[in-house]
Amino acid sequence: MPKGTNQAMYGGDTHLEKYRIRLQLHPGRRSHEFRPYRLFNCFCNNSFNSRKSCIAVVGATASKGKGGNIIVSNLKKGYSGKIYPVNPGYKEIEGLPCYPSVADVPDPVDLAIVFVAAHMVPGVIEDCAKRNIPGVMIQSAGFSETGTKGEALQQKAKQIADKTGIRLWGPNCMGLVDAGRRYVFSTVTPAIWETGLTCGNVSLIAQSGMLAGAFLIDLMSHGTMGISKVCSIGNKMDVDENDLLAYLIGDPDTAAIGLYLESFTDCRRFMALSRGTTKPIVILNGGKTAGGAAAAVSHTASLSASGALVSGAMAQAGIVEANDFYQLADYCKTLGMYPDIPPESRNRVAVLTYTGAAGIVSADIMDTHGLVLSQFSAATLEELQTVFPEWMPPSNPVDMWPGIILNGSKKVYGKAMEAVCADPGVDAVFVHCFAGGFSLETDLEMMAKTARKAGKPLFCWISGERERVHQFQETAQQHGIPVFREIMRAVECMGMLFHRPKGILPGIAHKTESNLVRLGIGSEQGLEKEVESLQQTLQGRGSILIQKQVQGKMELMAGFVKDPRLGPCVMCGLGGIFAEALNDTVFGLAPLTLTDALHMIDRLKCRDMLDGYRGCDPVDKSALGSILVTLGNLGCAYPDIQEIDINPLIIHKGVPVAVDGLVVLAQRMESK
Amino acid sequence: MPKGTNQAMYGGDTHLEKYRIRLQLHPGRRSHEFRPYRLFNCFCNNSFNSRKSCIAVVGATASKGKGGNIIVSNLKKGYSGKIYPVNPGYKEIEGLPCYPSVADVPDPVDLAIVFVAAHMVPGVIEDCAKRNIPGVMIQSAGFSETGTKGEALQQKAKQIADKTGIRLWGPNCMGLVDAGRRYVFSTVTPAIWETGLTCGNVSLIAQSGMLAGAFLIDLMSHGTMGISKVCSIGNKMDVDENDLLAYLIGDPDTAAIGLYLESFTDCRRFMALSRGTTKPIVILNGGKTAGGAAAAVSHTASLSASGALVSGAMAQAGIVEANDFYQLADYCKTLGMYPDIPPESRNRVAVLTYTGAAGIVSADIMDTHGLVLSQFSAATLEELQTVFPEWMPPSNPVDMWPGIILNGSKKVYGKAMEAVCADPGVDAVFVHCFAGGFSLETDLEMMAKTARKAGKPLFCWISGERERVHQFQETAQQHGIPVFREIMRAVECMGMLFHRPKGILPGIAHKTESNLVRLGIGSEQGLEKEVESLQQTLQGRGSILIQKQVQGKMELMAGFVKDPRLGPCVMCGLGGIFAEALNDTVFGLAPLTLTDALHMIDRLKCRDMLDGYRGCDPVDKSALGSILVTLGNLGCAYPDIQEIDINPLIIHKGVPVAVDGLVVLAQRMESK
Repeated sequence: MPKGTNQAMYGGDTHLEKYRIRLQLHPGRRSHEFRPYRLFNCFCNNSFNSRKSCIAVVGATASKGKGGNIIVSNLKKGYSGKIYPVNPGYKEIEGLPCYPSVADVPDPVDLAIVFVAAHMVPGVIEDCAKRNIPGVMIQSAGFSETGTKGEALQQKAKQIADKTGIRLWGPNCMGLVDAGRRYVFSTVTPAIWETGLTCGNVSLIAQSGMLAGAFLIDLMSHGTMGISKVCSIGNKMDVDENDLLAYLIGDPDTAAIGLYLESFTDCRRFMALSRGTTKPIVILNGGKTAGGAAAAVSHTASLSASGALVSGAMAQAGIVEANDFYQLADYCKTLGMYPDIPPESRNRVAVLTYTGAAGIVSADIMDTHGLVLSQFSAATLEELQTVFPEWMPPSNPVDMWPGIILNGSKKVYGKAMEAVCADPGVDAVFVHCFAGGFSLETDLEMMAKTARKAGKPLFCWISGERERVHQFQETAQQHGIPVFREIMRAVECMGMLFHRPKGILPGIAHKTESNLVRLGIGSEQGLEKEVESLQQTLQGRGSILIQKQVQGKMELMAGFVKDPRLGPCVMCGLGGIFAEALNDTVFGLAPLTLTDALHMIDRLKCRDMLDGYRGCDPVDKSALGSILVTLGNLGCAYPDIQEIDINPLIIHKGVPVAVDGLVVLAQRMESK
Repeated sequence: MPKGTNQAMYGGDTHLEKYRIRLQLHPGRRSHEFRPYRLFNCFCNNSFNSRKSCIAVVGATASKGKGGNIIVSNLKKGYSGKIYPVNPGYKEIEGLPCYPSVADVPDPVDLAIVFVAAHMVPGVIEDCAKRNIPGVMIQSAGFSETGTKGEALQQKAKQIADKTGIRLWGPNCMGLVDAGRRYVFSTVTPAIWETGLTCGNVSLIAQSGMLAGAFLIDLMSHGTMGISKVCSIGNKMDVDENDLLAYLIGDPDTAAIGLYLESFTDCRRFMALSRGTTKPIVILNGGKTAGGAAAAVSHTASLSASGALVSGAMAQAGIVEANDFYQLADYCKTLGMYPDIPPESRNRVAVLTYTGAAGIVSADIMDTHGLVLSQFSAATLEELQTVFPEWMPPSNPVDMWPGIILNGSKKVYGKAMEAVCADPGVDAVFVHCFAGGFSLETDLEMMAKTARKAGKPLFCWISGERERVHQFQETAQQHGIPVFREIMRAVECMGMLFHRPKGILPGIAHKTESNLVRLGIGSEQGLEKEVESLQQTLQGRGSILIQKQVQGKMELMAGFVKDPRLGPCVMCGLGGIFAEALNDTVFGLAPLTLTDALHMIDRLKCRDMLDGYRGCDPVDKSALGSILVTLGNLGCAYPDIQEIDINPLIIHKGVPVAVDGLVVLAQRMESK
């Protein structure tokens, strides 16, 4: 990334490398008409490859190391279309003829990449609009992230876009890297080419240039995972995460989507898009704690509540949450390799290890992630025994070392893989490998094939000598095996895969709630009939909750709150004196269906208590869910309502009864 | 590590590489007289270096790649004393004269390393005892880990040791690696020499050869951390974790101690040793969950309770717990670099980053680990502003990028380090670095010096291009800066450092409990007097809890349980209908002092509720603690008592009242 000083003329605005994007609220965008993907059409769809397409680089420069030069160099390295550098100061840049303005470029231009000083950007957009260029990617910085003056410039640019219909990507962004097509539309250091630019099936959308630059170089050079597309959305003044999410959901080269976001342009649309696809989506939401939000921006909303709200909304839409960049990458890698696990899969894991200690520690960590050790069938044990010494009957975890001494590692790993993959009591395989120093060779290709044939996800922990570990990681990646350097992370990913929120079925959420909950089932025959009927409705997806219609007692609480970012939300939690200390609360975005509400209840830590606990009557979840639905509807129906608190909601003979309630109206807040 | 078949004659027992050690219970060892460290004297103390010491390798072989050859080769590479290979089949091994038996070796021998077939081991020990060799390190396998036949052999060896006083290390172990002295007394692959054998101040004790072989190679080659000593204790038939812990506590080259244990030979002695030192100790306890314990061994005890018991015991003794091997290493690295933080240190962190996104995510993760962003002083902000552009006033996290563009990375990192280290509101610094691709150079040496001078721990997150990241890690290690590849782990280590359990003061726990709790303080003057008096007693260590002597109400539970591994234990937890679902229970080993009990109570998740919650009276922790103390004393005094359960323990006006209780006597169990 180039270093230098701000430049007033063509040649590159070095504020581009200002990664940090401030939190932006776009309340007005909710009603924004969704326009066709003109910008995407100009560089992402297939037709772009079938004809000779053209990209203009406005602000290109011959000065090596500057952003305006790097963009041209990166294009030349991978892009097969025509490249037109634009800068009145040059006749030629990087061997290409240079034009004084976009008006002078000969062919129709599909995309303009703009890297000029911020104050010149509005003029360039006007020029592009006049040339009927459908999309402009503004990589210059110096806009809303720098204060009021920059904010005004951004508004001006936005007005031109609104008037002309031209689509704008950015500003203050690192553009796009498409590893499959080898398109690097970015000021990212050309070192990225040396690190491999490994193609994979994970795509990222990032509200930070870091993930499209520094972190991408890290992922690539460490062989962590391959990438399809990385989209750095910057200040997202026009093209936002929802535009890109919609595109990537339909992208055949993308199997899993990861996002780093510090703000949602329209969270409800984001949720609707996520619900409308079976493609796995992972989010790292920056600023979700009080501390993180304070770091992101200071505003008046209740920040820690917002974090819990966002988590509730994500779970509601079936989106996986990550907490760190590498965890985001590892979750995406896992989901990219195993986007669909068989619906009958449970959580039973076979652990194949060369060291008992790692087997034991794996089992300990699995225990805390809701995974269990498979109970092997007699046939499996018999099969394993054929490569084991007599003195050591195999068990799970399979400590293969004694077998390896007798029969060599390839044979024992192979035999063990075959045996556990054939066992119907095994849902996933966790294999431990060592690279370097002593001969522990394994046939990764065979192992991958065996697992794939059995439809069982395979996970691998690798340790050993640095160079050989790296080779191992690259080979495993080629064979589609997710490899991890720490047992904890491998197990975390396994747990995520088996327990990830499944969300609400697309199209069903807001229509058929009455048909997704069947009450008054009095016989086993009736139950079977209803389950069959539900399964038909669910089309093999989702899960069915069977619960007794009886009573119990405890204290819960429920509420409604209007969040400045997410709008009307419903809360449910453990109540009474335990409420605050144990902090067992969940959130959902209103209006809720009953199914939504039941999913919310199921996310409570105390959910097991609701099913009838120590002689108490079980809680009528439907009744509880109905309260949540009604709270949401009430709040939505009356815009004056800012907040409703029902605490405690005493469970009397299984029925939730509101004993105390508080409604806060918005008048006083609005009059501020 | 060599591969081959079991050999009956001298030349190496290949079962050595069988890493897994089964859980061993040594109830008889509690009364075992603690003998002097004769084995350690023979190779660890300073006198060993001042004269020409001698090691005999019994079971040496000329056959390359075999364990008996590797031991000799590893000794030759680093050990400066005399080496005597012993094997009747050779005249010379690796250029050294070979002797038919230990009886034939010319000089007095300080240590015999034994690597012969298991059935020959007892005979070799007798030979060694006859030659007055003080210590024998048995690296052969084939003992208790292989079943009854091996167990009998181990018992036979033990009997010889008990009779002759010779000390035995092992069997079934990987011996010792001392990176400082460059001693490798191990069959570990000679590849370990190529990976660097980096010297550091962390020592490890491992009940698994993996940590002394495969994982050590991983740590060394990845530049994760330097090592002082790694001790693989195998079946620990004589020398055990407590012997080694006592040695390492006194070892001037060891600043932090990490252990991987699957069993405790004598947990109470382990705790006493830990309490008796200020040297930080970290443990990874394998088999602490139901799943993990089942993986480790099947026995009749209540396993998941045991895990919670061990956690309670560790916290009671001020020991840090880790959950994975790399986490163990990272905790040890951190504590080795920062064994003592100033007592006035709190949890306020300055974050210096080159990317806003990483700053925000750091703040989010800090929030969940009890760390807060420092509020910078006006002087600090003013100082930072000198390297920042006008449009961006600095805040915490400090996003340095705009400053870097103006002034270059070295200047900005340097200025920022100086400014935040001088700020009294900063307790630790978390700096983000990038290596490779673009110029983000930092002066690690200066940064380390600045932080050290200010007495503030410095943590570093590094990402970037693989080779340059590796170089960065090695440089940082040289300068004593702990570096992490993931923000999550860096913050985890920071949180551990600031919140690690401080344990009970050595020598005070069982003597002065009445003097550590001061009741009936009625005035501020009285409070001041007592605090001063307590501080004198505490000699500047420990912490003082000030609480009101008033009342409240809620449901708790308390109990006593006799664990087969740990003996009499006391339990305290949240009671009533929430008990099981929320699983808020803590354990301690009886007899408890009141201070012990108060520490236990303070480990409850619901501890905040005890201090007076939502209009409820606060709980009298002294009274609650007294109940726990009494429960423990009662259980200890009456050996027939197997279990006591008081549930619920209703808090009526702040006083805990036992409403229901159950005592289980042991007769029925003993009659089984």
